[in-house]
Amino acid sequence: MNIPKVIKLNPPQLLVVVFCVSISVGTLLLKLPIAANGSIGWIDALFIATSAMTVTGLAVVDIGTTFTVFGQFIIALLVQLGGLGIMSFAVLIYIVLGRRIGIKERLLMQHALNQTSVGGIIKLVKYLFLFYFSIEFFAMMILSIRWVPELGLWKGLFYSGFHAISAFNNAGFSLFSDGLIGYRADPLINLTISILFIIGGIGFTVLVDIWSKNSWKRLSLHTKLMLWGSLILNAAAMLFIFAAEYTNPLTLGTLPLGEKLWASYFQAVSPRTAGFNTLDIASMDEATLFFIIVLMFIGAGSASTGGGIKLTTALVILLATLTFLRGKNEISILRRSIHSSIVMKALAISMVSIVFVIFALLILNLTEAQSFMSILFEVVSAFGTVGLSMGITGSLTAVGKILIIFIMFLGKVGPLTLLFTLAKPAKEKYSYPKEDILTG
Amino acid sequence: MNIPKVIKLNPPQLLVVVFCVSISVGTLLLKLPIAANGSIGWIDALFIATSAMTVTGLAVVDIGTTFTVFGQFIIALLVQLGGLGIMSFAVLIYIVLGRRIGIKERLLMQHALNQTSVGGIIKLVKYLFLFYFSIEFFAMMILSIRWVPELGLWKGLFYSGFHAISAFNNAGFSLFSDGLIGYRADPLINLTISILFIIGGIGFTVLVDIWSKNSWKRLSLHTKLMLWGSLILNAAAMLFIFAAEYTNPLTLGTLPLGEKLWASYFQAVSPRTAGFNTLDIASMDEATLFFIIVLMFIGAGSASTGGGIKLTTALVILLATLTFLRGKNEISILRRSIHSSIVMKALAISMVSIVFVIFALLILNLTEAQSFMSILFEVVSAFGTVGLSMGITGSLTAVGKILIIFIMFLGKVGPLTLLFTLAKPAKEKYSYPKEDILTG
Ligand SMILES: [K+]
Ligand SMILES: [K+]
Repeated sequence: MNIPKVIKLNPPQLLVVVFCVSISVGTLLLKLPIAANGSIGWIDALFIATSAMTVTGLAVVDIGTTFTVFGQFIIALLVQLGGLGIMSFAVLIYIVLGRRIGIKERLLMQHALNQTSVGGIIKLVKYLFLFYFSIEFFAMMILSIRWVPELGLWKGLFYSGFHAISAFNNAGFSLFSDGLIGYRADPLINLTISILFIIGGIGFTVLVDIWSKNSWKRLSLHTKLMLWGSLILNAAAMLFIFAAEYTNPLTLGTLPLGEKLWASYFQAVSPRTAGFNTLDIASMDEATLFFIIVLMFIGAGSASTGGGIKLTTALVILLATLTFLRGKNEISILRRSIHSSIVMKALAISMVSIVFVIFALLILNLTEAQSFMSILFEVVSAFGTVGLSMGITGSLTAVGKILIIFIMFLGKVGPLTLLFTLAKPAKEKYSYPKEDILTG
Repeated sequence: MNIPKVIKLNPPQLLVVVFCVSISVGTLLLKLPIAANGSIGWIDALFIATSAMTVTGLAVVDIGTTFTVFGQFIIALLVQLGGLGIMSFAVLIYIVLGRRIGIKERLLMQHALNQTSVGGIIKLVKYLFLFYFSIEFFAMMILSIRWVPELGLWKGLFYSGFHAISAFNNAGFSLFSDGLIGYRADPLINLTISILFIIGGIGFTVLVDIWSKNSWKRLSLHTKLMLWGSLILNAAAMLFIFAAEYTNPLTLGTLPLGEKLWASYFQAVSPRTAGFNTLDIASMDEATLFFIIVLMFIGAGSASTGGGIKLTTALVILLATLTFLRGKNEISILRRSIHSSIVMKALAISMVSIVFVIFALLILNLTEAQSFMSILFEVVSAFGTVGLSMGITGSLTAVGKILIIFIMFLGKVGPLTLLFTLAKPAKEKYSYPKEDILTG
């Protein structure tokens, strides 16, 4: 297939350039006197710009009080740009590499879009933008039901728009100093925000698949795994958080049962990788914190605004392990088998991620005087572009902030580049004799 | 090949029975009034017996002061029994499953032992025992050079014998309250103990291979990987500990350069999986602690008294990842290629281990009021049958102690059983159509 040669950069290089330019311009804009009440430092401006562009949501300063409406508008714009950039790149991978997505679907897309031409890609991206803005506008209207009466017309609309963008792009920035803790019992806010980030995080291919099929049976294996996996993992997470925090007076302990359930639900679905919080993270039990770290590491769906190693990667590794333990060779689920090269890819992605996180953790442990747990939490949150924090972001050293900026950038650009690169394996030139090794 | 049907249990069942019976008898003996100065509780007796039989070395009480010479003798006996049991089982796997170990070697072994008959196995196990006791006796003599003048003839000999057994079987029990901290600058103790546990931990197949070959080139891939891997990992670990603890006044900070180097060396080679210490673990920097946790998780060599996922397992996963990142299909190292089924096995072992450790960690975090780091350290130490601790073992709750007993048992018996089971994959009956999944 023909890759459009509009610019003499390959797609991953283009992605890096777009991100670097956007973050630089964003940093300059956030440093303008009209962006912040008082002045913020260069590193802090760079941090917020990177956090916004990579839709992470970690913040070294309080977004709601530090920035003016102009500054907050710039942040929302960066989030929107970052989210759309990531999605466009995902679409590009999806099209250019001719991902197998079922024949009916492919015909449908080819018919509608003539996908190999530049015009086709532009058309598809147009559809994507339309879909994006419609959902965000619709969500903004719903959120206005709560926030316009509370905050007045303009401020209410701005808050609704900001949170709609922040949620749908899985950024997790909030204009409220304590996140969404004030709305932990509010079904309208809980549901609107969580549905937004779940749709935004489930992945482009899943959305196209559901949109173009009319029965469960005909959905692709990827879609089925994402839906089942999300459902089971979210339910398990909700149960765990509910049980572990039930008696904790600083989190669920003092809340009535209804609020306990809402807060457990929200805090269960948010770590992969929305990053909003309705409970105080730092007050949680260490078991809950560790559980959330695991959720953040797993992350959301492929080809989405979410981060982490991705739910399907974790599922493939789990399936491969179970298959092997049962002494079988063929990895199968839902009456489909999975090629071993996919297992290898999942393994590679997981291992690179684990090694990267461990390295970052060891370095930050040397530069920061914070607890091990809070640093591990921060590193995984940055790597998975989640944005939850035990509250140490603002107290990081300059070196620590720069490292987290670096981790957020790699956490977002790295997996996309890796996915693109891994999609076309090189040919071997010669072969060595095979020999066994004892493992385990 | 014919498996001897002396007992109507399969080898893993036999292993579990032998372990359970030995631990039960050991517990009873340690509860005898003549075993301890004052009485120890049932759970503590069970803990020490399990820790000894699984050659872990974690201790809820101070071995040197709590137990009488009789009690200490029982502990040494359990360690010896556990180590020999594990090695015999490893030999059984090695023989019964007809592991590929190079033609020359196989001919040599067949010639010497007629390996498929019961007589052959008994003969091989005899050789193993002879090898074992010779090394331990020799080491005891060397250690006596230091301890007989220091402690008198009989106590000196007993201490030398105890530490020789404890080191060669990778148990890590010490009769000194502060471990080997008092000897951190002593080359004789440092070298004798570390060489003992390195030989004991490198694995039966590696020893046979080195013993039967007369050139580096003809060594098996497994042996070469173990030797290179151990050398590089130990050197990297020594460098890391030296750098991270250099200024820590509670560990290396106040020591002269020579002692700094000896202590770094010893603390670098010990976590995989000997478990002796010449520095105070709890005083180490959190980065060092985490690094040691990684080392404990990796562990020693296959078919050895060591634990963990094993060095070759970690190497295979690393190689597979690097291969994939370079866009190649064939995993090769040192001019040999590795079959993908070995990668799958390494993946399965690592994943089961990670999931097991995470579960244990979450549960112990709920039952114990200790810091997250100290619990993680304890769990990985028990799982890898290492025996290093940040000092919380004695303060664990009863539930916590029972959980650690369970983890030590599974950490030792589990991987051996898994290795045995994984060695013969079942045949598939039918095949599902292949379908792709997006990962990463
Ligand atoms: K986020
Ligand atoms: K040990």
